[in-house]
This record gives sequence, C-alpha cells and structure tokens, in this order.
Amino acid sequence: MVIAAWTEEEGVRFGTDMLGSAVAAGRLTLDYAYDLVDSEGLRFGDELDRIGFKGTQPVVMEAPHAYVECHIEQGPVLLRDEVAIGVVTGVQSISWQKVTLHGRAAHAGTTPTELRVDAGLAAAQIVVKVREMVDSGTYGRLRATVGHIATSPGLPSVVPDRAELTVDLRNPDDEQMAAAERDFAAFLDTLPELQPCSGLRVETKRMAKTSHVPFDQRVQDVIAKAAAELGHQPVTLMSGAGHDAQEMAAIAPTAMVFVRGQHDGISHNPREYSTPEDCTAGISVLANTLLRLTDEPTDALPGEGAPTAEDALTGEDALPGEDALPGETHDA
Amino acid sequence: MVIAAWTEEEGVRFGTDMLGSAVAAGRLTLDYAYDLVDSEGLRFGDELDRIGFKGTQPVVMEAPHAYVECHIEQGPVLLRDEVAIGVVTGVQSISWQKVTLHGRAAHAGTTPTELRVDAGLAAAQIVVKVREMVDSGTYGRLRATVGHIATSPGLPSVVPDRAELTVDLRNPDDEQMAAAERDFAAFLDTLPELQPCSGLRVETKRMAKTSHVPFDQRVQDVIAKAAAELGHQPVTLMSGAGHDAQEMAAIAPTAMVFVRGQHDGISHNPREYSTPEDCTAGISVLANTLLRLTDEPTDALPGEGAPTAEDALTGEDALPGEDALPGETHDA
Repeated sequence: MVIAAWTEEEGVRFGTDMLGSAVAAGRLTLDYAYDLVDSEGLRFGDELDRIGFKGTQPVVMEAPHAYVECHIEQGPVLLRDEVAIGVVTGVQSISWQKVTLHGRAAHAGTTPTELRVDAGLAAAQIVVKVREMVDSGTYGRLRATVGHIATSPGLPSVVPDRAELTVDLRNPDDEQMAAAERDFAAFLDTLPELQPCSGLRVETKRMAKTSHVPFDQRVQDVIAKAAAELGHQPVTLMSGAGHDAQEMAAIAPTAMVFVRGQHDGISHNPREYSTPEDCTAGISVLANTLLRLTDEPTDALPGEGAPTAEDALTGEDALPGEDALPGETHDA
Repeated sequence: MVIAAWTEEEGVRFGTDMLGSAVAAGRLTLDYAYDLVDSEGLRFGDELDRIGFKGTQPVVMEAPHAYVECHIEQGPVLLRDEVAIGVVTGVQSISWQKVTLHGRAAHAGTTPTELRVDAGLAAAQIVVKVREMVDSGTYGRLRATVGHIATSPGLPSVVPDRAELTVDLRNPDDEQMAAAERDFAAFLDTLPELQPCSGLRVETKRMAKTSHVPFDQRVQDVIAKAAAELGHQPVTLMSGAGHDAQEMAAIAPTAMVFVRGQHDGISHNPREYSTPEDCTAGISVLANTLLRLTDEPTDALPGEGAPTAEDALTGEDALPGEDALPGETHDA
C-alpha cells in the first residue's frame, strides 16, 4: 500500500495543477515539469532542489492495483442531502477559453451609438449569453462561469477598444459539453453582426480542456459497501473540481470518497470546514475501502471498460496533449 | 481683446479638467487648485512655481463682454454633413457613476447555478441594459458608455464576488437626462431580484454630474453670420465633450466654433487631424466673430435669458458644487 503526497496539486505557483500526479501517470514529462517557472521566473526543478525535495528515483509510476482519494466535496450537495459521505462517479468535463474582443476606441460624448464598436458591450453580451445557455436546460447539467472580465483602456469616457474575458464551461456529459461548445462558438461568430457597426474582431484562445473522467465502477462499489458497513448511507455524485484522481484514472482503477463540507462546501478559503465527525467518517471509509481492495486478487481489477496501464501515456517523450493543456489552469 | 491659454484643460495630470477656466470663472478656488496632487504626490501649486508659471496677478476674471472658443469637433458630424464649420449650441449634460456590485465568490465547478450571486453577471446585465435604454429612443439623444468593467478576484474558475463598472450618460436635454437617470436607478434597484439567489448588493458613487450648458444665442448668431460671409454654410451642433467655454458661459455670453475633424473626428490620439483648409476656415470665422463682437456696444450683450456676470460664483470661498464635482473627471 502506498500513501501519495502529490506535489503542486493546486498549480497556484507554477500554473499547472495536478502536476505531480500528471508526471507520475506519464501525461507530462519530468523535464516539462522541471522547466515550469513561477511569476518571479524561478524554475520548478531548481526550487525542488533548493528545498531538498528533488529526489533521484524514477517518478513515472507503475500502475497500482487501484487508487482511492478522500477529499472535501467543495460543493453543497452532501450538506443539502444531509449525508456525510459521497461516492464520486467521476470528474466532469472542463473547457476554458480566453476570449479577447477587439473593438474601436471612441469618445463617449461625441461618438453616435450607431458608429460604435464597443468591445465592453460585446463582452457583456457574452456573459449574459452563457448564463442563458445554462438556464435553457438544453445542455443538461452545464455550468458556465465568466470569472474574469476587463476592459481597456478602462476609462469612464472612452468606448473600450478591447475587452478580455474567460469562459469556464463544465459538464458531466461529453456530448452535451460538445453541443454547448459548438453553440457557444456559433454565438461568437454572430457577435460582430449584433453590433451597430462593423469591425468587431473576436479572438479565442483555449486555456484548458479536459474530457469527462469516469471513475471505475468496481472501486465505487467497494467504497459504497465500506461506507454502508460503517453506517453511512452514501450518495453518488460527480466531482465539480479537478483532483489528482483524474490523472491516476488513466493508469489504474480509481474512485474517490467525498466528505461533506459546511458553509455550502466553500473551499480554498479560511471558512472551509468539515466537522471532526465527518472527517472521521471519510478516513474510516477510505481505510476500509483500501483494506477491501488489498484483499482482492491482483487480477480482480480493472473492471470491464476501465482504462488499463497500457492505455496511459508513458515515458519521457509524452507531451501534454490538447485534451489537457498545462499552463494557465488552476482548478483543483 | 484677450487671448486666453488655459492651464490644465485636459485634467490628465491633476485629475480635474477645465481647471484654469474653472478658477478664472470662480467655480473653483485658487487654493483648491493649488492643493491638487498628481499620481506622484506632486502639488499643482508647487509645480507651477517650479516652472515659473505661478503668477502674482489675481486669477478670478472680471466677466468679459463675450467669450468665443475654436476647437476640433471631436466627433464625426461635420464630416458626415460635409461642412467645415459648426456653430456650437452648448455642452450636453454629463452624468458619471461608479457602480460596485458585491456578490458571493463560489467555485465554478461545484456551485449549482441556482446558488450563485455572480457579481460579473450583474455587471454584464447593467452594460446590456444601458445600451437597450439608448436603443429604446425613450430618452431622446441619450448616449451611454460603460468604459471600465473589472471583476474580482478575476480567476477563470471563481464566480466573481465583486465587479466594478463606470456608467457615463450624456444628454443634450436635462429632462431626458433626469428620466434616464431615474430609470437607471430603478433598474439597479431590481438587479438583486434578477439573480437566482438573494445577496447581491449594489453600491453607486457619483463621479461627476454637469447640467446641460446652453450657449448664448446672440453669440451663436454672430458666428453663423461671420461664417456665411466667408462662404461657409454653418450647421449647428451640440458639443459631446467638455470645453473651457462651459466654465466661461457662467460669467459671459459664450459660444464656440467647431472645425471638422477627419477620421470620424478622432481626438486625443496621434490620428487627430483637420485639414489646413478647415483650420484656416475655423480661425477666420473666430477672428471675424471677435471683430464683430468688439464692434458692439458693451451693453449689447448678454441677450435675454443668458447668464450674467452676477449669476456666476465668485470669490475665494466658492467651493465646487455638487453639479460639477472635481476629482476623477477627465473629459475635455
């Protein structure tokens, strides 16, 4: 049995989350990771060396028999359902884009409305549109967030010539995600025509894209049994956030235990809180799940359809694929 | 005859535009002006002293017989109408507000839409709303601009807990401006109800507010006659931007000559351009207007209903009134 403490799961300092597990699972190379730099230009490999954490053993893992991770839910579902433990069915698909709008700067007082190409207005139209897409129900359990909006030059009396925003789409269903992305792209294509005057240019840049990662059904069943035995009525739920488990799922049968959070499940925040009782429940379910899994014969897993070690990217040549661009992502 | 070269008309460095003319006309005190500081903490009075421009003569003007100013239009109207010279009827009303929206930060992946208080979405709804108000035609010749939009914390995967935007409204009609301001305030009142979840707080701060400044009809007539005599078919138009003339209008019969700009009238920009022929036309009309005005008996002006010297604020005790807050404005 191996206890893993993954390096740089958050990706806050070096810009790529799930970094340690992505290297261990072979999706990113060690050299790629070492060469990442923080905002002060310091190199990840050098910083590991400096603090004595740069080991000499090979870091690409042999596929384990199974992988299980325990985490606060980071959402309000278990609290609403009044249960301490959740069995996680997988990680939803994530799509991040940066959209940059190029309009035309103009004097707010002297420029008639019909002669404006207002990049800030176009940005606002996008924000309103993505919420309409969510509210329409057309895309299943789509969630959409525009976290960053900024206009330039940003002066009260100047029509913005430039606006920048990020669009974060999530969906537990890859097909519904594809439909949402397709329709959103079509909306961006029509955006210049929605302006009173020609000249709006829309530029998009993919920041991150991950497919739905389904977890192994057998490992989920083992977690559910362990939880029931300890007196918990576990519910199943999709993870809204990213976790190291999504990297490990590429090389081993994987699932997760979620622990109820208080305060609507708020996390990455001083108010993040799970009760001692719920934490105890989570660790007990994790421990009992691991005991059950270690008792299995080594060929009992993976179950049918689950990824095998051979499916995973391996070796130093594996470059980050388009499905999981490193870089600006931070979503653990 | 006096040629005036006003100090700090743009207000770029010390944050208050029309500064010299506002002091000369008695709306702002000299001490108020001297105590303004730039972004590096340097005092306006000290900087005037340093460059030898801090004079010793009293700066509050005696009301002149009349005041005329010649300026590039800063808009596309004369170009569209194919005329070199415009007679300016006045400066439109300006209303600037900063709107700050306080929502609730939330994880983009884990937080159901119905539990979100998204400050960025609310900001976008405001931007879309003000353009709808303009397009409705309900408020006459209303112009509305949201130049600055910014969300906080501004991360792709975090629902913004805070958004800030500026709303610039302009109208040549004070009543229609009042109606627009009233309806906009009512919209802000309903904005929390438009969110799926309670908790949105809307904060507004007045940044600037000036009333419509009508120019003197007789001075306008003199300009029109001088222009016609020089072979120009002058059109009348409202100024979309602020000018020193709006300060002088408080103490003397005032109007302006506008000269056609090329490139849609773009100004404050290296592309600002009026042809030598149009500049010649503007200066000729200005000179001929002044000659006509100096030939008049001193009691010929002001005309009926125009402001008189006695209406103006005078003296060192005059503080900036609410109708023309100094500070963050820059719109000349």
